[in-house]
Amino acid sequence: MVDDREAGLSLQPKFDAQGLLTAVVTDAASGAVLMVAHMNRDALDLTLSTGEAHFFSRSRGRLWRKGETSGHVLRVQEARIDCDQDAVWLICDPQGPACHTGATSCFYRRIEDGERLTLT
Amino acid sequence: MVDDREAGLSLQPKFDAQGLLTAVVTDAASGAVLMVAHMNRDALDLTLSTGEAHFFSRSRGRLWRKGETSGHVLRVQEARIDCDQDAVWLICDPQGPACHTGATSCFYRRIEDGERLTLT
Repeated sequence: MVDDREAGLSLQPKFDAQGLLTAVVTDAASGAVLMVAHMNRDALDLTLSTGEAHFFSRSRGRLWRKGETSGHVLRVQEARIDCDQDAVWLICDPQGPACHTGATSCFYRRIEDGERLTLT
Repeated sequence: MVDDREAGLSLQPKFDAQGLLTAVVTDAASGAVLMVAHMNRDALDLTLSTGEAHFFSRSRGRLWRKGETSGHVLRVQEARIDCDQDAVWLICDPQGPACHTGATSCFYRRIEDGERLTLT
């Protein structure tokens, strides 16, 4: 039997035991991965309805509009879902650095030899 | 005080309560996100030491070398870690389709209007 969640054309997100999906954000212009975060149902719905990325902060336990404080919102150009519908890929136009450190991307360090990091 | 995990140059992965990191795989050639999976300590160590992506399957509860059955291994060209060291970005040279469905990427469907999907 074909798995409708995998092969079908309706959105059936599979939230985990904490009610979350994984979200990956890439920059539409550079293709770089900017950040990885989590989304609950409200964050997913708001992202899709407003066109701006919303996440659920596990550490703060609350919904969060990316850029609500910094102004560095992520405008969503395209959203995709993966085969088992537990991860979302947002292709975005970032309105500033994506990382709270001020870096363009949260992934600003390369793993060199299993333990040493270098700045990219 | 500066957070050494964020600002430092040593690998200090922050595994979650299940002992896992999130891993995002992109194609070095196309830049596309190919898949999202999880890594425990062994998967991370083996990925970095062998240069082939290893993950931890939550559904099967075991370590898994990507491509061990299909031959579609992911050769890691570069590995990066994010600001709080709970997510890894692997830039890979895939030796075949990354998705078990046979698709190049697990993200083969675009979310169109909040509920409808279309094939990319």
